[in-house]
This record gives sequence, structure tokens and C-alpha cells, in this order.
Amino acid sequence: MHAPQSVLPAQITEIIARLRERRPVVHCITNAVAQRFTANVMLAAGAIPAMTVAREEIAEFVARADALLINLGTLDIGRRTAAEIAIDTARKHGVPWVLDPVFVDRSPPRAAFARSLLAGRPSVVRLNAAEFRTLAGGQPDGEGLAGFARQHQTVCALTGKIDQVADASRLAAIANGDPLMDRVTAMGCAASALTAACLAVEPDPWLAAIAALTAFGVAGEVAAERSRGPGSFAIEFVDTLYLLDRETLIARAKVA
Amino acid sequence: MHAPQSVLPAQITEIIARLRERRPVVHCITNAVAQRFTANVMLAAGAIPAMTVAREEIAEFVARADALLINLGTLDIGRRTAAEIAIDTARKHGVPWVLDPVFVDRSPPRAAFARSLLAGRPSVVRLNAAEFRTLAGGQPDGEGLAGFARQHQTVCALTGKIDQVADASRLAAIANGDPLMDRVTAMGCAASALTAACLAVEPDPWLAAIAALTAFGVAGEVAAERSRGPGSFAIEFVDTLYLLDRETLIARAKVA
Amino acid sequence: MHAPQSVLPAQITEIIARLRERRPVVHCITNAVAQRFTANVMLAAGAIPAMTVAREEIAEFVARADALLINLGTLDIGRRTAAEIAIDTARKHGVPWVLDPVFVDRSPPRAAFARSLLAGRPSVVRLNAAEFRTLAGGQPDGEGLAGFARQHQTVCALTGKIDQVADASRLAAIANGDPLMDRVTAMGCAASALTAACLAVEPDPWLAAIAALTAFGVAGEVAAERSRGPGSFAIEFVDTLYLLDRETLIARAKVA
Repeated sequence: MHAPQSVLPAQITEIIARLRERRPVVHCITNAVAQRFTANVMLAAGAIPAMTVAREEIAEFVARADALLINLGTLDIGRRTAAEIAIDTARKHGVPWVLDPVFVDRSPPRAAFARSLLAGRPSVVRLNAAEFRTLAGGQPDGEGLAGFARQHQTVCALTGKIDQVADASRLAAIANGDPLMDRVTAMGCAASALTAACLAVEPDPWLAAIAALTAFGVAGEVAAERSRGPGSFAIEFVDTLYLLDRETLIARAKVA
Repeated sequence: MHAPQSVLPAQITEIIARLRERRPVVHCITNAVAQRFTANVMLAAGAIPAMTVAREEIAEFVARADALLINLGTLDIGRRTAAEIAIDTARKHGVPWVLDPVFVDRSPPRAAFARSLLAGRPSVVRLNAAEFRTLAGGQPDGEGLAGFARQHQTVCALTGKIDQVADASRLAAIANGDPLMDRVTAMGCAASALTAACLAVEPDPWLAAIAALTAFGVAGEVAAERSRGPGSFAIEFVDTLYLLDRETLIARAKVA
Repeated sequence: MHAPQSVLPAQITEIIARLRERRPVVHCITNAVAQRFTANVMLAAGAIPAMTVAREEIAEFVARADALLINLGTLDIGRRTAAEIAIDTARKHGVPWVLDPVFVDRSPPRAAFARSLLAGRPSVVRLNAAEFRTLAGGQPDGEGLAGFARQHQTVCALTGKIDQVADASRLAAIANGDPLMDRVTAMGCAASALTAACLAVEPDPWLAAIAALTAFGVAGEVAAERSRGPGSFAIEFVDTLYLLDRETLIARAKVA
């Protein structure tokens, strides 16, 4: 593999700038709890979200989208069918997509469904350590992530205190973020959606995931400094993402 | 037609005052992304929202409501059936209703469904230019709007940089609002809900739509002046609508 | 009955402190309008919410939860089935649960369903006066509440200007809260969820309900003092609940 092993903050800022300029349409099949916050995060970052989960319409929407998010939270039968149609459509039209296997560690049928979706070749799988253990069977370290990425020909983006982003041969660690992010529902879901938005403007999915998670973590840090608690944090987070400038992103990005 | 061709800001403020005083119940069949924000906008403006979309209960709720909103976002089979039952019930009980044909430009089956609902005689159709072109087939100018209004015996309320509200013989333009409104999801959906609330307290649907869109636009302007970005804007918008006084509304309304 | 007839603020603060320390998982089957706010209130108070309503997964989630909330808002067929499975699972695993019979006064089929769920022995029923009248058939006074609690072997937590919490032999009144709470959607739903969270850390359901409603009312008062209107109130409410300290709770609690 000939890809660079390190990411410059400048590459991240360019992806975020392209997102604002091109305003891609991102179709988000996401859970009921996350829908509104996800849509507002997308709009703040410059993407145009479409959120329908109705099976009758999903193919029309996905065929016209620039990227797709499949989030498995609140997974009812309607969303399952919608997800399958959406992935088929995305593959047919070359639309890159992100899988967020929310809570597969708490629901065996959901884990089985997530495994079946991996065959549809997501560009990125965004998940946490418990979800990784359930889905990959191994440890959430560099080797484990690379193995998962190689097996499923995807990028594995694992979020936690330190985020790790791996493809078959490259690994990056991102040390941004703030503990308040765990006190607001659907933050992980929104991070996955931002990853999908970056995929729409960056052909290298590894770089796209790094850009999304770094911008997300930096916005979280800045917002936390301006907040009293999780209520004001969520508001400041959206404002910060909207206002995030090149200087702040470069000064704060902790990517290695 | 003998109706006045111009609207005094005082007429608008009277409708908004009646809304606060009478506290009408507005049943909102709206999309999953918009439900919470719509309910909070309604409560801030003085209306009492009811939001169930369950087909088993919808008739009971609509029969007791003072107005009805049908919004076609995230349109699954359940919501389609609920919409049809709700409109039948509204017509039987003389409950005025608003149609918001969200995204009909992106989904042909949704456009077909919207066309079928027009036969149920909405008092107002609230939509944007792309949705108008898909549904009406013509240009979103004064003549196009009047033609649509005449054909469907409705009021056509088209929102954009300048809002236009037309019935068969009258046309008003509203120049309030702020670009930040496009960076918060479901603002258009909430504007349609406020239109339904005004219909509950004003028998002339043309005036009701003008009052709703003017108050909405003025609140948007004031909120934008107090905001850092789309996160704080959405919060300030709800506060501003709640606090909006007669003086601010009269001083800022740009209705012609 | 040998239970104490009065509640010390210290008992309330201990329950709230245990909630923060133990971080119980609370499964919330709640309506679409309330889901996000409920999840954020839970996280702010220290609980871990799970929100799926999918019938395929509900048993797995409830079996692992520390408490369960069943809220009947936006009650579609999927949620009905999920509620029934969830209650069966909760009884089998000894998971305490709260029933919030939202709007049973506006929908006879919903009232009938709520009555059938009472047979599943909720630890607490949290409702308002109109819902109480529909479900209990009597007056929402101390005697009416005690009768209802006795008949269904539950705790009856009636919220309003003054909250009342009764079991078969004990009655408490809580005089905290603020009128702005009625201008934000799903506040009652969130109060029911907080009651479920307190049930997870306090074996006496009467005390658990009192602790939840007192903390909720005190947070509402403090938040109202810091707010301009219902938009900022909802944000301040979440921050306040997160920051609520022992001193504030003891100084402000009005429990008799």
C-alpha cells in the first residue's frame, strides 16, 4: 500500500471546506431519537440532509443522494427493509455509504442484521468499542481494526476517548473531544452522518472519516468550553460546527 | 371579488393575539424530524398541539381539533392512511386544514399522493418553489399562484426569500425572514403548523396564512440578531415567538 | 401500614445521588415527540436511556434494563405490541416499570388499552388530572388517588400545579415547578422517565416518585429564573438537572 501514514490538518480543513462549498445531499436512515439532531448537524456543517425511511420512496431519494448513512438504532421492520433497499440502490449508483451498527452489543438479532449488511460494502463502519467487539469478535486495537477493515474491505472508525480510524494498511488516532459529548443523545449518530457527508466530497474514505471525526471532536471541545451542561452544550456544538474556521481546526486537531 | 388587496399589520397582530387568547388545538400529522420542534413552536405561539399519527386514533383527535396540518415528510404507509382518515374527518367536522407537500419534487409517488389530497380541499397549501413547480406545473409567480389557488379552491402560500400568499383574486408578498432559517431543519414544517393555528382563529384563510408567515418571518429576523449560529437561532426563535409583541410585529412587518 | 407519612428532603437527595452514581439503564417506550428530550433528560440526570420500540428487539433490551417506562403517546400498533412484550418481560425479570397514560382523555381506544396495562402492575402511574378522571373515574384528590393506588396496587403520581403522590396509605404533595413547563412539549413524559430512573435505585416506589417529581420541579424553577422563554427554558432545564446540587434541592424542595 502506498498511502501516506500521516494526515496533515490541512487535508482535514480542505475536506471540511469542500463540504461547505459543494453542499452534498446525504440521505440518512437513522433512528427516531437521532433524526432531528442529525439533520441540524448536517445543515450546520453545510450538507443537505434527507431523512425519509419510507420503503416506498427510499430508492428515489438514495439514487439522487451524494452519500448514504445507515444507522441501526430503533430498528423496526420498516427501517430494516428501507436499509436493504437503500444499500442496493447506493451500490447500483455508486453512492458511498456509512454503517453505524448502534447497540449491536445489546441485541443479537441486530448484530446478525449488521453482519448481513457488511456484505453490501460500506465505505466506512463507525462504531464504539462494545459494538466492535460484538461485530468483529476481536480487540479494538490497531491490529483488530486493520483485520476488520481488511476482511470487509472497509474503513473502521472506532470512537471513544481516542478515536481510531483504520483501513487495511493505515491507522490514525484522534485525541479530540470532551466528556460532555457522552451526556447528549445521538452524538455518535451525528458523527456517523458527518462521516457520510465527508465521503460525498472526498474519494479516500479513510481521509473522509478522519476529517469528520476530527472536526466533530474539535467542535465538541470548543462547545464544552462555552457550556454549563449538556443542554447548552448541544446548542453550542451546532453553532461551533457552523462557525468552525480553518485556524481553530488546525490549531486544535490532535491527529497522529 | 370584493376582498381588500392590502393587509394592515394591525390585522396580523389581531390574529396572533387571538391565537394566544383562544389556545386552539391543532392536530399535526407531520414528519418524524419535525414533530418536536413543531410542537414547541405551537406551544410558544399559544396553540395546543396534538401529534399522534396512529390510524386507530386519528379520527377521534381530529374531530376535536380546531385545525389540522398534513405534512408529507417521512411519508410511510402509516402516515398515508392517517392523512386520509384525518382529511375525511376534518371535512366532515368543518375543521380547516393545511397541506405541506414536503419534497414532492424529489419523490414522484409522493407528488402523486399530494395531488390526490388536493381533492380534499385544503384551506391553504404551504410549499416552496421547487415543490410548487412539481405540483402546479407552472411558474411560481403571482399568476401561477393565482391559477393554482383557483383550480384547487385554496390559498397558495409559497415561501422563499420573499413569501407570496395568493388566493384566486388576492396576492400578498412578505419580505421578512433570515438566511439562518434555512440552516435549521423543519422550519418550513413549523411555518405550515403556525398557518394551521392561525386558521383556527381566522375565517379568511388568506389572512390567516399572511399572519402566520409574517409573524414567523419577523421572529426569524429578531432571533437571528440574537444568535451565533443555527443552534442558538432555533432556541432564540422559540423564545422570540413566545415574547413577540404587537409593537415589534407592526414595526418589522414587511407585507405588501 | 407502618411507612413514614413525611419525606425528608435528605431522602430525596440521596435517591438523586444514587442515580448519578449507579447510572442505571432505563428502557423508554415513549412517543416520537418525546424521545429525544427524554433521552437527554435521562443522560443529564445520570441514567442511561435505551429507546428502541421495535417489537423484534424489545425483550432483549428490557431484560437487561434496570427500569422500564411505558408512555402511550403517538400510540401506533408497533408501540402497542412493544409495550405488551416489554411489560411481560419486565414482570418476568422483576424490572420495575412506570405507566404514563398520555392523553387517555382524548382517545377512548387508548384509555381501554391503558386499563388493560394496569393489570401488569406498574410500580407507578404518572398522569395529569384529566387523564386521572378518565382512567380512575373519580376525583383527583387524596382519597381518589389512594383508592386508585389501592385498587391497582400501584403508586399514583398526579402532576399539576401541585403534584400529589399516593400509595394505598401515604400521600405527599409537592409544590415545586413553573408555568413555563407547560410551554415545552414532553415535559410530563420526561418526568415519567425520571420516575422510572429513580425506581431503578430506590425500592420504595412512593419515595422514588417523590424524589423524581421534586427534583424535576426544582430544576424547572431554577431553569425558569434563567430563561427568556420556552426555547431557552428547555436548554436551561437540562443544564440545571445535570448541575443540581444537594444544597439547592434541600433549600427549594416543597414536599409535605
